[in-house]
Amino acid sequence: MSSPKQSKPKARLPRGFRDRGAGEIMAEQKMLATIRAVYESYGFEPLETPAFEYTDALGKFLPDVDRPNEGVFSLKDDDQQWMSLRYDLTAPLARHVAANFQTLTKPFRRYQTGSVWRNEKPGPGRYREFTQFDADTVGSASASADAELLMMLSDTMEALGLKRGDYIVKLNNRKLLDGVLEASGVALEDRIKRGVVLRAIDKIDRLGVEGVSALLGEGRKDESGDFTKGAGLSPDQAHRILAFVAPDAEDEEAHLRQIGTLVGSSAVGAAGLNELEQIVKLLSACGYGPDRVLFDTGVVRGLDYYTGAVFEAQLTFPVKNEDDEEVVFGSVAGGGRYDDLVARFTGQQVPATGVSIGVSRLMSALASRGLSAAVKSPLIVVTVFDKADAAASFMLVQELRAAGLRAEAYVGNGKMGDQFKYADRRGAAIAVVEGGDERARGEVTLKDLALGTELAKSVETRAEWVANREAQKSVKRTDLVTEIKAMLKANAKGDA
Amino acid sequence: MSSPKQSKPKARLPRGFRDRGAGEIMAEQKMLATIRAVYESYGFEPLETPAFEYTDALGKFLPDVDRPNEGVFSLKDDDQQWMSLRYDLTAPLARHVAANFQTLTKPFRRYQTGSVWRNEKPGPGRYREFTQFDADTVGSASASADAELLMMLSDTMEALGLKRGDYIVKLNNRKLLDGVLEASGVALEDRIKRGVVLRAIDKIDRLGVEGVSALLGEGRKDESGDFTKGAGLSPDQAHRILAFVAPDAEDEEAHLRQIGTLVGSSAVGAAGLNELEQIVKLLSACGYGPDRVLFDTGVVRGLDYYTGAVFEAQLTFPVKNEDDEEVVFGSVAGGGRYDDLVARFTGQQVPATGVSIGVSRLMSALASRGLSAAVKSPLIVVTVFDKADAAASFMLVQELRAAGLRAEAYVGNGKMGDQFKYADRRGAAIAVVEGGDERARGEVTLKDLALGTELAKSVETRAEWVANREAQKSVKRTDLVTEIKAMLKANAKGDA
Repeated sequence: MSSPKQSKPKARLPRGFRDRGAGEIMAEQKMLATIRAVYESYGFEPLETPAFEYTDALGKFLPDVDRPNEGVFSLKDDDQQWMSLRYDLTAPLARHVAANFQTLTKPFRRYQTGSVWRNEKPGPGRYREFTQFDADTVGSASASADAELLMMLSDTMEALGLKRGDYIVKLNNRKLLDGVLEASGVALEDRIKRGVVLRAIDKIDRLGVEGVSALLGEGRKDESGDFTKGAGLSPDQAHRILAFVAPDAEDEEAHLRQIGTLVGSSAVGAAGLNELEQIVKLLSACGYGPDRVLFDTGVVRGLDYYTGAVFEAQLTFPVKNEDDEEVVFGSVAGGGRYDDLVARFTGQQVPATGVSIGVSRLMSALASRGLSAAVKSPLIVVTVFDKADAAASFMLVQELRAAGLRAEAYVGNGKMGDQFKYADRRGAAIAVVEGGDERARGEVTLKDLALGTELAKSVETRAEWVANREAQKSVKRTDLVTEIKAMLKANAKGDA
Repeated sequence: MSSPKQSKPKARLPRGFRDRGAGEIMAEQKMLATIRAVYESYGFEPLETPAFEYTDALGKFLPDVDRPNEGVFSLKDDDQQWMSLRYDLTAPLARHVAANFQTLTKPFRRYQTGSVWRNEKPGPGRYREFTQFDADTVGSASASADAELLMMLSDTMEALGLKRGDYIVKLNNRKLLDGVLEASGVALEDRIKRGVVLRAIDKIDRLGVEGVSALLGEGRKDESGDFTKGAGLSPDQAHRILAFVAPDAEDEEAHLRQIGTLVGSSAVGAAGLNELEQIVKLLSACGYGPDRVLFDTGVVRGLDYYTGAVFEAQLTFPVKNEDDEEVVFGSVAGGGRYDDLVARFTGQQVPATGVSIGVSRLMSALASRGLSAAVKSPLIVVTVFDKADAAASFMLVQELRAAGLRAEAYVGNGKMGDQFKYADRRGAAIAVVEGGDERARGEVTLKDLALGTELAKSVETRAEWVANREAQKSVKRTDLVTEIKAMLKANAKGDA
């Protein structure tokens, strides 16, 4: 296949995509299994929807309203209909529920994990394909459905090994904010203005009170000089909203009184306070106090479609960012109540609430806590002394596998030196050699690679290293499995 | 959210895509875990590549050459470069190896599982998104690398519960066919003609010798009257190829002699025979005789890129097709050696061999053998008697989960009757009721739903059914976990 040089494709990935290796995949597998176990113990069952949906079925709910057509990957099908890759797992769920409404058992409780795709500008640590893990309850308006998700989210964080204090689940209610907006004279029907307000508040951690204040008013110029148009609220209105988002009350009780004042006579505000109260009551009866789930008016979530409770799991410990500065890790999961998503299809309101974990983000957080390492079982590499007679090595490997060990015979073309190097680079625990002489004597040689590496550190010269025979051992062929298991056991002790 | 009726999106999936429910997902999870365990025991480690690749990096290797631009889903990135969703896991592997060639440990042994997408006409049981499970060894030309994959494929079939005789792995070598082509005067450089020949042979199970003979010659008219252009071989050439594909030799030895005659003095044919011999020798030494891996010249595989060994796992037991006819299930996995794929990028040949399992096909095969059922642990539904005081039910559920049980409190808005109906439809094993009076007495009621369903069948009237108290039982609140475990144990015995 000798094509001229100019026609060769380049071996590279599209921008914003990446390959992932064994360590990361195995750690993710372990993490997903833990989340799955918690969700299943709560009675949630898996559902899988395909990568594609019709574009109109997905709707436009991405927070990045500035690029409304660019947030998703879309293409035209043969029949000229637009399809898009899912950008989250909630929109496909709404489609699934609407399509199967009559036959589904309600409340419908499902979890789903899988890739989602965002057609956004890639950046450091910001990919265009990533994994989410969602759980949702559809068909219940009850506060207990929200409360249950909050407990489950908290349980999940702890099942993954995070300690209380290392994470916090923050809870708020969109209806409270709507109440404040209504009380300050912003029409709730003005969805666009409401959206600008939401996204402004969502940036409070990054921009502070002053930045958000500007975005609630005329707008804000950032460091690069770019101007972002604001919501156009009056200073009074902006002040009222900021008093809600960043309260100055001394305690929880004073805070709730303050909110009562801010929502005034707004009916939606009162409903929000009532929902919040019910959720908190259930949580505290079950032992999920403010050390696990905390009421925080600063959490609004960027997505437009939430209608009631909104929540977010944050990690509170410091990590280093790209500029080597210490920052708080921040949000790893979020969710809330979205009572109108199914109605997009059916016209009929179906109450729903859900939570979504950002798997990759949470995994890198766990890694920084030393909580994500997957345990690989040790690998045995059996070298092939005489390529014309590889069968003996393969039979040896079969025997090891039958004993429950992870083992491979060398299938490459290298000489013995290359084979040892291979075993080493693969991180093998033991290399097995069975030369012709040894076979005649009924023996094999075991090379303890972990020990060899250790010993090599303390010897000065290669000659000395070669002379150092403690890292290898001749054993009877018939004792192969027993000897290998003993060697692995000794290694494991050394590690511990 | 009251949008006018005409603007509502329809709740439906794009053609050729589907949702999958809990039963199928859990069965697939179990199957993937089994395959993963076998592959890892052989020393293969996971790799993950993204859904998208640059279109030119994927290449055009789909067998459906009649629709060269329609086999894949493609779209233009912001920078006007074409990207496509992967249609298999081999092309992305070749790209990964070419991009990371210097740093990879060779032979590079990886497995990957994930969705692939084909932009093809959907049909019954034929979807545009499906799961593959691949394992490949890159960087070894050794026959032992091929032999190992064949053993691993056979082991996998047996690990999934298939009996010897229910499956067979068939082995052939492209070089033998190339030798026959060369000996019959077809230029091997004529890749297009070679491709037409390959795909004609690949259809022998469906079209028989006569149909393939027509496709090797001028062409073939099918039942619908459509004419497929043939490879244009002479009757003599076609005869020679058919003698290879559908041999009439009495035994293996006579067959090999016949092949020797058919490839004549072709060097590539001789190389093919030599490779075949080495693989079979290794297989038979390790106990993989013709009852597990069988040499069969009828297997050629449709993909263009194979260069040596090709193989296919077939299930030999009969199943009913859509027309209720008994047919042999057929191929569930395939693979082979492809020494030129990495060279597309680098210009340098990198020998490689791999196997791919069609996960969905294999799963439906296992289901027809009763081998795919995932075991769900039994679900306990705790009803909520008084919605204003749901906390008691939630605390009860917490206690059950802490004891390792799968349990949920009812989060919907239904009355008690609805709640029992819900528990029933969810397939719950037990419903738990704690009314106000019971709580005062320190008791709860357990409803054995499996037993209740059974008993309900034998009673005539609802009154009688209500009077029938054997399916439910009052127990002390403090004995809750013990009593539930005993009830589940009794149920499990009843099932067995």
